[in-house]
Amino acid sequence: MTETGLSPSSKPARSSGRSASELRPVFIETGYTRHAEGSVLIKAGDTHVLCNASVLEKVPPFLKGKGQGWVTAEYGMLPRSTHTRSDREAARGKQSGRTQEIQRLIGRSLRAVFDLTALGERTVQLDCDVLQADGGTRCASITGAWVAAALAVRGLLEQGVLTQNPLLDQVAAVSVGLVSGQALLDLDYTEDSGCGADMNIVMTGVGHFVEVQGTAEGQTFERKALDELLDLAQAGITQLLAEQKRVLA
Amino acid sequence: MTETGLSPSSKPARSSGRSASELRPVFIETGYTRHAEGSVLIKAGDTHVLCNASVLEKVPPFLKGKGQGWVTAEYGMLPRSTHTRSDREAARGKQSGRTQEIQRLIGRSLRAVFDLTALGERTVQLDCDVLQADGGTRCASITGAWVAAALAVRGLLEQGVLTQNPLLDQVAAVSVGLVSGQALLDLDYTEDSGCGADMNIVMTGVGHFVEVQGTAEGQTFERKALDELLDLAQAGITQLLAEQKRVLA
Amino acid sequence: MTETGLSPSSKPARSSGRSASELRPVFIETGYTRHAEGSVLIKAGDTHVLCNASVLEKVPPFLKGKGQGWVTAEYGMLPRSTHTRSDREAARGKQSGRTQEIQRLIGRSLRAVFDLTALGERTVQLDCDVLQADGGTRCASITGAWVAAALAVRGLLEQGVLTQNPLLDQVAAVSVGLVSGQALLDLDYTEDSGCGADMNIVMTGVGHFVEVQGTAEGQTFERKALDELLDLAQAGITQLLAEQKRVLA
Amino acid sequence: MTETGLSPSSKPARSSGRSASELRPVFIETGYTRHAEGSVLIKAGDTHVLCNASVLEKVPPFLKGKGQGWVTAEYGMLPRSTHTRSDREAARGKQSGRTQEIQRLIGRSLRAVFDLTALGERTVQLDCDVLQADGGTRCASITGAWVAAALAVRGLLEQGVLTQNPLLDQVAAVSVGLVSGQALLDLDYTEDSGCGADMNIVMTGVGHFVEVQGTAEGQTFERKALDELLDLAQAGITQLLAEQKRVLA
Amino acid sequence: MTETGLSPSSKPARSSGRSASELRPVFIETGYTRHAEGSVLIKAGDTHVLCNASVLEKVPPFLKGKGQGWVTAEYGMLPRSTHTRSDREAARGKQSGRTQEIQRLIGRSLRAVFDLTALGERTVQLDCDVLQADGGTRCASITGAWVAAALAVRGLLEQGVLTQNPLLDQVAAVSVGLVSGQALLDLDYTEDSGCGADMNIVMTGVGHFVEVQGTAEGQTFERKALDELLDLAQAGITQLLAEQKRVLA
Amino acid sequence: MTETGLSPSSKPARSSGRSASELRPVFIETGYTRHAEGSVLIKAGDTHVLCNASVLEKVPPFLKGKGQGWVTAEYGMLPRSTHTRSDREAARGKQSGRTQEIQRLIGRSLRAVFDLTALGERTVQLDCDVLQADGGTRCASITGAWVAAALAVRGLLEQGVLTQNPLLDQVAAVSVGLVSGQALLDLDYTEDSGCGADMNIVMTGVGHFVEVQGTAEGQTFERKALDELLDLAQAGITQLLAEQKRVLA
Repeated sequence: MTETGLSPSSKPARSSGRSASELRPVFIETGYTRHAEGSVLIKAGDTHVLCNASVLEKVPPFLKGKGQGWVTAEYGMLPRSTHTRSDREAARGKQSGRTQEIQRLIGRSLRAVFDLTALGERTVQLDCDVLQADGGTRCASITGAWVAAALAVRGLLEQGVLTQNPLLDQVAAVSVGLVSGQALLDLDYTEDSGCGADMNIVMTGVGHFVEVQGTAEGQTFERKALDELLDLAQAGITQLLAEQKRVLA
Repeated sequence: MTETGLSPSSKPARSSGRSASELRPVFIETGYTRHAEGSVLIKAGDTHVLCNASVLEKVPPFLKGKGQGWVTAEYGMLPRSTHTRSDREAARGKQSGRTQEIQRLIGRSLRAVFDLTALGERTVQLDCDVLQADGGTRCASITGAWVAAALAVRGLLEQGVLTQNPLLDQVAAVSVGLVSGQALLDLDYTEDSGCGADMNIVMTGVGHFVEVQGTAEGQTFERKALDELLDLAQAGITQLLAEQKRVLA
Repeated sequence: MTETGLSPSSKPARSSGRSASELRPVFIETGYTRHAEGSVLIKAGDTHVLCNASVLEKVPPFLKGKGQGWVTAEYGMLPRSTHTRSDREAARGKQSGRTQEIQRLIGRSLRAVFDLTALGERTVQLDCDVLQADGGTRCASITGAWVAAALAVRGLLEQGVLTQNPLLDQVAAVSVGLVSGQALLDLDYTEDSGCGADMNIVMTGVGHFVEVQGTAEGQTFERKALDELLDLAQAGITQLLAEQKRVLA
Repeated sequence: MTETGLSPSSKPARSSGRSASELRPVFIETGYTRHAEGSVLIKAGDTHVLCNASVLEKVPPFLKGKGQGWVTAEYGMLPRSTHTRSDREAARGKQSGRTQEIQRLIGRSLRAVFDLTALGERTVQLDCDVLQADGGTRCASITGAWVAAALAVRGLLEQGVLTQNPLLDQVAAVSVGLVSGQALLDLDYTEDSGCGADMNIVMTGVGHFVEVQGTAEGQTFERKALDELLDLAQAGITQLLAEQKRVLA
Repeated sequence: MTETGLSPSSKPARSSGRSASELRPVFIETGYTRHAEGSVLIKAGDTHVLCNASVLEKVPPFLKGKGQGWVTAEYGMLPRSTHTRSDREAARGKQSGRTQEIQRLIGRSLRAVFDLTALGERTVQLDCDVLQADGGTRCASITGAWVAAALAVRGLLEQGVLTQNPLLDQVAAVSVGLVSGQALLDLDYTEDSGCGADMNIVMTGVGHFVEVQGTAEGQTFERKALDELLDLAQAGITQLLAEQKRVLA
Repeated sequence: MTETGLSPSSKPARSSGRSASELRPVFIETGYTRHAEGSVLIKAGDTHVLCNASVLEKVPPFLKGKGQGWVTAEYGMLPRSTHTRSDREAARGKQSGRTQEIQRLIGRSLRAVFDLTALGERTVQLDCDVLQADGGTRCASITGAWVAAALAVRGLLEQGVLTQNPLLDQVAAVSVGLVSGQALLDLDYTEDSGCGADMNIVMTGVGHFVEVQGTAEGQTFERKALDELLDLAQAGITQLLAEQKRVLA
């Protein structure tokens, strides 16, 4: 079990007291539950996500006999992780479009840094369950899931199941957005709700993009604003990557 | 946030070192998440359940305009709360029979100590989500849910929404079972798996029964064994009731 | 085709004219439909359940190649078996929690008296369909399903498919409850609705318990009341076991 | 409770000993269950269908406030009504295409003889559940459902709920088919399975057609064969209509 | 790509200007989409259906290893093919009873003219999707699907995958109905809505019946009217069969 | 009905003969079906999407009485729009995660250029159904849906239902991607399959971003490549916007 915090930086304050380019405090606790091959509770401010990595000795049907593994993710929010209670998806009998979109994003992000052939015919299944939500749950899920996956892979290497590390790089994610025309890093729920345009950015340890998802429902944005948001995100992700490293050290 | 432990007692040891009539250490942490009107993390040994109570200003259709409230529960296990990963019910598109059976049990148990008329036309919705499982999750859910419900009710009284306390008594639960012919209190997963007959007992603060559910799949049992199991359970629940009181004090 | 009735006994009368410890008249008609390997219509007063046992030459996936068989049950109520019409579960697209709870109970109860290894790799599938309901349908289902299963097993023995009888004992069930503080045997619908606490008890031919399910939604109960209910149930089940034997003779 | 049989007629014998133009023995038992407003068990040879008519004081949304009623039907087969066990539709979570097709047919057939305005804003809901199947279940359902509906309507008239009879005529149905080139009336399961072309014909008391459904999967048929099948069906339905009348007399 | 029109005939005019025995103009365009083995857009007046035939090198489980193929169909309406928008079945999560009834009808109709053994262990899957609806979509689907199937089969013969033609005959369909007591051929949406009784007739190239489906919801009909409707349909189908031949020539 | 083509430009050729910065030929046909308030068939090379706009005089529950309208979309692929047949989502009983993701994207993109208050309490429902797929279906859907929406709005203005135009700007979309390290505009299916990283870009008439969705499953990308892809997309969308204008003129 390891815990740590990131220290802030720069600019004019927000309702939370943070500057525009300041992350929320991040805590990553490893070994949060005992059964998963990798178990991480990540806290980004008041957003708390339990990320469990399971190693399954099987692959989906479309990969059978292909000599490679798979990495995939599922995502859920506990009904009362939110300000007002949300319906339980298991009780409604289906996952929402939003849930499916997020779990597909997490899966793609993690696969981007995995050598699936080196993984062998097994699956790393990531379960990201939001215990408490305050904006940015999909980004926290990706950042936490990578640590959980790294712990699971470390186990496989230590047990000699794997001899080559299938994890090629780190991956982490953060949200950015335009609030009242100002570019802000790492939006909390209130900022996200009042936000004209927001982006979720996923990057690797060497600073390459994995996913860039920007959406303007209330307010379309110019290329210049897009560039500014990308700059903010790159700086934020650099800090998250450092934190991941620190926790695993 | 409150934490506490119960001290053990009596008899010959089990693999866990406990005596036959000894509960697992119980810790009840209140205020575990911030949005729910009552939020409790209960740990009974390695079984950890997050119990959130939400107060909803509505009642189910069959109670509309009847001048009374409702208390109900939903239950879920995180996919990797278990030794090997279980399917996510939201992804499978339905709750299992076991899940439905358990959440109906939790709801009935809590309603047994509520004056629904005093509650007024609102619902106390309990969400019991198992973060880590090691046997006895339904009993821990009931014991924890009662504390969460009590916190939610306390809030309603403090805010003046309610003037009369609708909570008539405490309710708590424990499992007992016959393992190799010996009656044991508070089975963990290994004991439960090897168990010929097990019971889940739910009792109120004054020592009345709310639910008595005994099942023999492997080994039917005589009236004498049933009596012994009931004795064990009564003693165990007495300790749990004391712990609930202590946490709320 | 065999039919028979049980004669009543003891105590003060109920609205039905029965004494507190008196069963409803029980009729068990065998050979009710022609395709099932065992087919039984059981009538407990106005509760009529068609119990069909099918022998399937396959086992569920989790038992494949394990050299043992399986016994399982499904339960349903015809939409107009009830006082007012209930929705058809096939049309609603899912079985209710209550239905699943009951069919799990029937399956467990029957398995308790089966030697699954002696059964070989085949399944005895019990279908309990309520044609008319007046309380106690799950108990009638168990009592009737055992007779249907016994007929199916008898067929397998007669055909030489089985040489060893896998049926170790009888199993039968009855409900008991506290109505206005008085312990009553074998509740009909009206008594069940007005009942503070009721139990369903399942016992074997040698008088061991298989299931003990007591529930207090309206009225919690003391150990003494529990003991009295168990006594009543034991006496009632003894009569049902005799009736099962008589029908199969 | 009323029971009766039809006597056979004419021509060369089939495996069942019937002539080509001979119905199976028909028994219609009324009052089979006690809760439904009209309850009928119809037996056409070894095909046994329980037809219950419920009167519901509501109409479907599309008819609300239109000053007219509705007549509709649901159909189901008990899992072991068939030679080998079929899956339970409630357990599979959906009704098959065949089931939906049949219940739509029953509903349309009954509505053809109802004055929905005279019925008032209420629904006659017909539940046709096959207890035992040996071919022709949809036709037996229609013939039996009409009797159940007639009983329910009779009750409404006797209670003074209705003053005008909304039932304009009788309706009954029978199957016919070409087996080895010969036109046969009222096919049983064996004949139906070996049949190249079969038809289900629904007619009113005055001899008008309500439904004519002919299907050739194995063997297409000429206009002349079609005419012959229609003749056979008309004769068979005449006998069923007489039987319906006799039972209600 | 081939297009053609049929010329009208006889009798008093309808709102569309057609005589009672006149088909709507029919255009059959082949090669409408590029991926399907056979692709046809059929227009019957304002009813436009895209019929795609796919050749799948597999058969359903019940036919595995039986040395024969299968022909089956699915049917759908685009949400705004209709006058007012209909719900999308994929979004509602199930196909309506009507949809299932129609796709079963199309499948049976096509199988009636296929030698499934000559087809070998493969499936011809027909997808009939209504782009624009104005009555008679199921009949247009059958007529168009046959052309699509014929194109797919022609491809298999040309590639030498098949050496024997599994297509035994043509099949086409048309609707007829009684409107204000008059028998009309090929009803459009307005006529269909105001129609007391209508029939869908499916016939082969040699003039045999495959399906005869007549339904009277509003108005039952005598044998004489049935005969007249069958005459009309036979004449109409003769023209459709000629058109199919012309397009494939 | 209007049809038009765009002429190509610049650079080294691809398998299709196009240069890296060249769009596929685009044809937009209006009035493709007759019932929808706006109906458009858009062809981008071999990708053909039918986009229908329906005007519904109602809003979703969460907007009732708020004095504003809604714009939303549904998306589907016909089973044989693809190279090999895909399952029909209506038959499988649920929409895939990909489908939901795409229809959410189309809805958000269109809402970005609508003044929902000016629209009044009504819904513009867009149905985008892919008749033939060759890559880029979601982008073609957005570009075509805007034209369909514009036609529907034009109708509302012409009928005087609306007096103020709620459509604030155009919106169009295109895909770009890195294939073998080269940035390409408007990927077809083959390019998309072999693509390391691809982006879908949605922009308004004034050149603002609405959505920026870049994904690297096979190959992460640097900021410089991202910038180049954005440049390509902006140029391509400019041509699409011109084409939309031309068609509506």
